[in-house]
Order: sequence, then C-alpha cells, then structure tokens
Amino acid sequence: MSTLPTTPNPVDAVPVDREVLLARAYLSRVAEPPAAALAAFVDEVGPVAAARRVRAGIGDGPGALPPEVARETSARRGTDRAEADLALLAARGGRLIVPEDPEWPAVALAGLGVVAGPDGAPGLEGPATRDGPAAPLALWARGPLRLDEGPAGWVAVVGARAASEYGLWVARDWSAELADRGVTVVSGAALGVDGAAHRGALAVGGDTVAVLACGIDRVYPPKHATLLEHVAQRGLVVTEYPPGATPARHRFLVRNRIIAALTAGTVVVEAAARSGAMRTALVAGALGRAVMVVPGPVTSLMSLGCHELARRPEVSVVGRVDHVVEEVSPVGDGLAAPPGTPTRPTDGLDPGAMRVREALPLHAARTVVRLAHDAGVDLAEVDTHLRELEARGLVVEHGGRWRRRPG
Amino acid sequence: MSTLPTTPNPVDAVPVDREVLLARAYLSRVAEPPAAALAAFVDEVGPVAAARRVRAGIGDGPGALPPEVARETSARRGTDRAEADLALLAARGGRLIVPEDPEWPAVALAGLGVVAGPDGAPGLEGPATRDGPAAPLALWARGPLRLDEGPAGWVAVVGARAASEYGLWVARDWSAELADRGVTVVSGAALGVDGAAHRGALAVGGDTVAVLACGIDRVYPPKHATLLEHVAQRGLVVTEYPPGATPARHRFLVRNRIIAALTAGTVVVEAAARSGAMRTALVAGALGRAVMVVPGPVTSLMSLGCHELARRPEVSVVGRVDHVVEEVSPVGDGLAAPPGTPTRPTDGLDPGAMRVREALPLHAARTVVRLAHDAGVDLAEVDTHLRELEARGLVVEHGGRWRRRPG
Repeated sequence: MSTLPTTPNPVDAVPVDREVLLARAYLSRVAEPPAAALAAFVDEVGPVAAARRVRAGIGDGPGALPPEVARETSARRGTDRAEADLALLAARGGRLIVPEDPEWPAVALAGLGVVAGPDGAPGLEGPATRDGPAAPLALWARGPLRLDEGPAGWVAVVGARAASEYGLWVARDWSAELADRGVTVVSGAALGVDGAAHRGALAVGGDTVAVLACGIDRVYPPKHATLLEHVAQRGLVVTEYPPGATPARHRFLVRNRIIAALTAGTVVVEAAARSGAMRTALVAGALGRAVMVVPGPVTSLMSLGCHELARRPEVSVVGRVDHVVEEVSPVGDGLAAPPGTPTRPTDGLDPGAMRVREALPLHAARTVVRLAHDAGVDLAEVDTHLRELEARGLVVEHGGRWRRRPG
Repeated sequence: MSTLPTTPNPVDAVPVDREVLLARAYLSRVAEPPAAALAAFVDEVGPVAAARRVRAGIGDGPGALPPEVARETSARRGTDRAEADLALLAARGGRLIVPEDPEWPAVALAGLGVVAGPDGAPGLEGPATRDGPAAPLALWARGPLRLDEGPAGWVAVVGARAASEYGLWVARDWSAELADRGVTVVSGAALGVDGAAHRGALAVGGDTVAVLACGIDRVYPPKHATLLEHVAQRGLVVTEYPPGATPARHRFLVRNRIIAALTAGTVVVEAAARSGAMRTALVAGALGRAVMVVPGPVTSLMSLGCHELARRPEVSVVGRVDHVVEEVSPVGDGLAAPPGTPTRPTDGLDPGAMRVREALPLHAARTVVRLAHDAGVDLAEVDTHLRELEARGLVVEHGGRWRRRPG
C-alpha cells in the first residue's frame, strides 16, 4: 500500500496519502450526512480500513460492520466513484480537505461531535435521533483561502432567501464593512441575504467562504454561477457533499451546522418566523459561538424570526458592525465605542446651574433674586452657577440682570 | 387646628385633612423637585409641621431647619399659594393626591426613595448629588382614573418627539392593542411618540395616564390641548409640579422617574442616541421594572437609542404586543405564544422519511431500490418511510414505482 503515489494538496506542503484521500472520498458519498455511526467508526479504525470494511458489507465475525454503520451505508456501499470524484475536483483546481491534513479545522468542527441532535444539527428540538454526532468526513473545496484560517476571524452572515430590500442592504453593507476590517464573511450560496453578503465583501476586495448544500460541481442556484466563481477565485467554496449531490432541502439544514462551526459568530440579517437562518443561529449558540440578530421594523415579516431570536438570553441584538466585532472578539477586545452622540454646550453642567439657565426665559433678563426663586435654588448658590454659565458663554450680565446669550 | 374643614377628594371616600392638603400644596411649590432633604424632613415631622417650620425659615435651637432643607427651600419659602392652587385645582375638577390619601401609590413610588441618583433619577451616571431620594411630595391630578389602580396593569409607552412615521405607527397601534387587552398606557404629553400612544389607546376606548413636566393648568405642548382634555376626561393627567410651573428641560428628565415608577414596565418605541426616553428606560430598570425596546431599521437614527439599549442585559426586545404583555406579567403568566408559523405537510416527519421524499424528483417515478440509494437510507427502512408518506398523502405508488403526489 505504501507504494501508492501521494497527491499534494495544492496549497499544502504536507501531502496526504492518496489512499486516505480515496477512502474519504468514497466514505463521503457512501452515507448521507450527518452519518454519526460511520464517523465514529472511521475515527476508530481509520479511513482506509473503514472504507474497505464498508465496501465488504456487513459480514460476520471479528470483521463485521457495526449494525448502525451497516444501516447508514447499505444503500450506497456499492457506489465507489472516488477516483473519478478526485479527478473531477483536481480538474477544477480543488482539493479534498480531510482530518489527516493540517488544513482540517479540527477545533472548529470538534463541537459538532459533542452537541449534535436531530438530523445532526446540535441543540435543536425534535425527535430523538440515531444520527448523533455529526462532524463531516471530508470537505470538498475550491479556492485559495485555507480552512484553518478560520474560524476566529470569520463571521457568518445569513438570512432569508426572500429578503427585503432592507435585508439585502444590511447584508451587503455590513459584509463590506466586515471585509474592510479584515473579517472573512461566511455564508451559504442562496439568493437573498447569502448572495448579498458575498457581493458586499467581494466588492471591497474581501475573501468570502461559501458553504454549499450540494456537490462542489453543482451550480445552485443557477443565478449565482458567476458569484460562486468569484468566491472560488478569492476565497473558498466548500461542501461535505460529494460531486453531483443535489441540493435537497434537508441538506440545507444539515449544511447550516458547518457554517455555524466554521465561524466565531453568526449574524442573522433577516429571518421569517421559521427559517433555516434561525436554525443556523441556534446551532451557533449550541456550539458556544456568538448568535447575533439584526433588528428591523416590527412590521416586517422578514424580521419576525430575528425578533423572536432576540428574546433568547444567548442572542445579542447588533445595531451596527461595531456590535458584531465586539461580540466575536475575545472578551474585552473590540468593545464598541458608543455611537457618535451630539454634544451640547450644557453637557456636564451642575444640575443647579442647569436649573438656573432654564429659569432664564429665551428673550428676557432676570435679577439674581428672581432667578433663585424661579429655579428653586438657594440665593447664595445662584451666583456660583451664573459664573459657571458665564464662563461657558451661556449667559451674559448687563446692569445686574442676566439673560441668555444668543446662539 | 382640628376645626379646619376637610375636603373630600372627589373619588375618595376617606377625606384628607385640609390642613394636610394645604401643607403639601405649599411644600410642593417651595422646593424644586426632586427635593430629597425636604421629602425626608416631611416624612420625619409630618407635612403640617414641616410646612410651618419651612415658612419660619432656618431659625436656630431645637426648631431649626436642617441646613439641607433650608437650602432647598430658601428661594421660595415666602411664596405660599396653597389656597389659590387648591381652588384652581378644584375649579378644574382636579384633586391633590397625597401620601395621607389611600389613593397614593405608595408601593409604586417607594423605590424612588431608595435608588435615586443625580437629579433624582435613579440609576443614572453623573456627578454625585445632594438630591438623593426623590419621591414626590404630592401629585396634582385631573381625571376619573385612580392612581392606586396602577402600576401592575400599567405600561409606559415613550419615545422620541421627532419620531418617524414608523415610530408613530408602532406607538399608536401597540397602545391601541394594549388598551384592548385592558392595559393602561402611561406616557408624557409630548409631540411624537407620547401623543401617538395616547391617541392609539383613546381611539379604542382605553384610559391613559399623562404625566406632565409642568403645572396641571399649563397646556404643553399647545397642540395637545384637546388630547390632554380627552385624557383628563377618561384617564388621568398628573404632575408633581404646582400650578403655573413651566415645562423646563430638566423637569422632563425629573418627571420621567414618575412615569417609570407608575408602571410595570416601559416600552421605548423610538429613541435617538441620547434622549429622555432612554433615560426613562434606565430609571425603569433601576426600579426593577421591565425595560423594553421596540426594534427598528438599523438605518434609522430614531432607532439608534433602542438598539443601544437592547445590548444591556436588563433590556428586552419586544417585537409585538404579546412580548410586552409577557414582560410585565407575573412570572409564568402571560407567556407569549409563538407567532403564527406556517405549517407544512412534512411537519413532524421522521428525518429518514423526509430524505426519502426529497429523493423523489418532482415529476418522475422511482423504484424503492433507487430511492434507498438516492436518499442514503437502508432498503429495509425505505418501505416504512414510504408508508408514512403515503398515509400523509405525500406520495403515491403505481406499478412498483413511487412518485410525489401532486399539490
């Protein structure tokens, strides 16, 4: 076996054994993600032995497949397109990122094996499932960005396909600002918020990561063909699904756990009451990542999900990009400055001085005694307050009577 | 002294001694609220003795005024219009509500004496103040609603004077819905959100409470003359300021603590980055009342303050009136139902059955073996899943091949 040639990953100095790549390519097609039993089996016996034993079928005796692994793989175990898949990937300049590769984002994905719930998405309600832990077996990728550069500086920007103009604007504008600040935007590839997020970041020269719910060779949605090429040229297009896999609905939900895991936090720009974006947010929360929602008009159905999420204690409302940066920064770093607040000439005035000033009418003069009465301030103190106001240019005296200074 | 006649408050069976009313009417004018030292002094010696000693001035010996009380009252102690003020109030059908009256909302206002900070507003940053505790000395009121009916069922709806159309809409619509649910809306009387809140509640036959920052005889802003009459006819117009007091700016801030104290929670509809509404919200939080903000577009300056507030742990985002009711209800009561969510024929489907259904193309039939492969589901289980889908009317079989059921 050691005579097999090794294939260097394009951007990786440490080549992964080709036999391992072939085994993982086969395994990533042989079970529908998330395939928890198979993942655990691969961890236990290694990808090459796992692939061999899955190909051989359930068998009996010491080499028998665990029943759950047999169940997950029975329908497709006869389908081995690993060579063709890797060739297709290579032809498109892509690479298969596997746990044996230093680029594998092991820490980022580790949480998935711990908190996974129904259909592999962690922390969600639903019937108990046999799927359990759900780290991907391999990731098919195209693009120069390295996966192990995330997730600390990566932020997911997700939301509704049927986004409003407002949602599209926020996705585009904030993603551009995030990219300007050196934050890599991660999203799906859907119409609506996903597309706007990629476009905003790309427009200012940022890299983005698109996580697909189908094979790397599929262009879905078709309208995003050019956009996905841009992402692949500068950032990264990545998926756990083998070439040719179609974008079935449940795959979007399963895929969302990868988006959440690859980022330090997820920003939900717009979400209807029941949506995949809400789900990604809940996954992010279960993984201990920041969960952020963009507020919007309470009259907008597309903000309904955001406002429902905002009521959960683990969810933060982000009103500007500063807030996003604050949420995903290590504690104490990146604290958002307060928004630019208007200053007033009366800022910091003693409350007594404020009262004296307000006791002065706009267009009339007052004696000190009258001012003391109207302001309810002790006569002995009015003089002090008037001097403070005078020093700030707020009042002026003429012949023993005080008036407001114009302007 | 006991020979003085007593004046029954119009809606109150227990008459308050007229001497007490005159004393409190005098005291409410003699110091600018919040007058913490005077309030403490009144609590200690009673209103009648306090009024007599303030009138007499600082003096010396055992009857001497505490220096802080002397300071608070020195400028106005010679002004006694109590008889005229009460006559004016009576002529307008009003009443002076005092702590000696069962209508006095003692529990609601108690917190003000404990947590007051600078300028009497509790929990706010600013220079240390000599004002300290700041419960009002008396409340001048007009209208049939009784103050002691709050604050459990009362909610403050406050916000910017320069509200946007969106803010005005929310204030009006939500206040109407609150009134419909039997919640009394409390607000100021300003243009913008305050006015819209009153109008919304009044429009559906609700009572509202307007807390003024000026005398009960002043009409401010002038545009709200008719509106304030409506409030006084059905609800309550109330103020701690004596007749004739002008609406100076600092009085709005001081007044806000009364709004917060009289309600179970405060809803900030719109607020610029620096605003009185934000302040009312912070006061409400310091008093342990619910603090709620209405989200809005992040592009709107008038929602900026709401979104900043939303980042504080004690502040809740309310996306609909259900949320408001939930926040101000005793724990466990009034929980908001989830928003109406669309139901789908696939709700509650086993994940495996979902996969099988999604493996069926829209317009083609499939054999069971092909379905098992495409869905990645064990052949033995596909049949079970297909029966579940068939029972729901989602799939149909013909000649050993399955297809989606149209519609």
